[in-house]
Amino acid sequence: MPLELNTLIVTKNKEKRIKDNEFLLIKEGYRLYPLDVPVEIRKTVQGSTSGYGVIEKLEWEKEKTTIYFKLISLNSVN
Amino acid sequence: MPLELNTLIVTKNKEKRIKDNEFLLIKEGYRLYPLDVPVEIRKTVQGSTSGYGVIEKLEWEKEKTTIYFKLISLNSVN
Amino acid sequence: MPLELNTLIVTKNKEKRIKDNEFLLIKEGYRLYPLDVPVEIRKTVQGSTSGYGVIEKLEWEKEKTTIYFKLISLNSVN
Amino acid sequence: MPLELNTLIVTKNKEKRIKDNEFLLIKEGYRLYPLDVPVEIRKTVQGSTSGYGVIEKLEWEKEKTTIYFKLISLNSVN
Repeated sequence: MPLELNTLIVTKNKEKRIKDNEFLLIKEGYRLYPLDVPVEIRKTVQGSTSGYGVIEKLEWEKEKTTIYFKLISLNSVN
Repeated sequence: MPLELNTLIVTKNKEKRIKDNEFLLIKEGYRLYPLDVPVEIRKTVQGSTSGYGVIEKLEWEKEKTTIYFKLISLNSVN
Repeated sequence: MPLELNTLIVTKNKEKRIKDNEFLLIKEGYRLYPLDVPVEIRKTVQGSTSGYGVIEKLEWEKEKTTIYFKLISLNSVN
Repeated sequence: MPLELNTLIVTKNKEKRIKDNEFLLIKEGYRLYPLDVPVEIRKTVQGSTSGYGVIEKLEWEKEKTTIYFKLISLNSVN
């Protein structure tokens, strides 16, 4: 089974806010992320850090991965 | 993050039938299973094969893993 | 990083004998195999079981995986 | 098989220099690290970043993981 080991959350602006600082993000394929620890968030793979989040839930189904994360810090943009 | 690589479904009789040949099973910790391919099912780690299933969904949350599998063959026991 | 979760050793006749019942097999890409437990060996993905082996060492380098396994049982072929 | 998903290199001062900017580090257990991408290096889990490295080789054997990494940047310490 193909897997992708991911150490960053790359949103490509596709994250959806569930409420307050809680978001979900759906990615193609089965992806392995570290849960319950702070993970860097970027808009693009090569981009700069937009903040940090903690993934609290991960789902694999039909060759898609859904992660549910809580934003814990946000880089300010002037 | 601790993970467990699993290549068998070991039920310990804790599987719950959702409907027909569809089951869910909750295991402690974050466990990696192969999805979308036939996986051997056993009642205990050392036990004999009780059948084969295909895991169609996997969830990680709060240090538990939930797998949703379809039973595709069952060893008859006389 | 792309990974492949493997639960079988598929040799495609490319295994190399190191000595006695010890073999190595080089596969493309980074692949995750269970170590230290019996794993089914097949010549092809869809083929029948040719035996069981225990992987004792795994190496990842330059997008290749090398596994070192000990053959523990062999299906006889008449 | 127990695994540990690691997204940082935590050296605990146990890295060994092979030559120039190349190091090896042996860790207990089977650990999954991302290869071929920059990974943060710390002396302790909670410590500050001491630099970045790229893991070029990973070995699993006898419940130990050996990683070979190239140091690509080093935080200066006054």
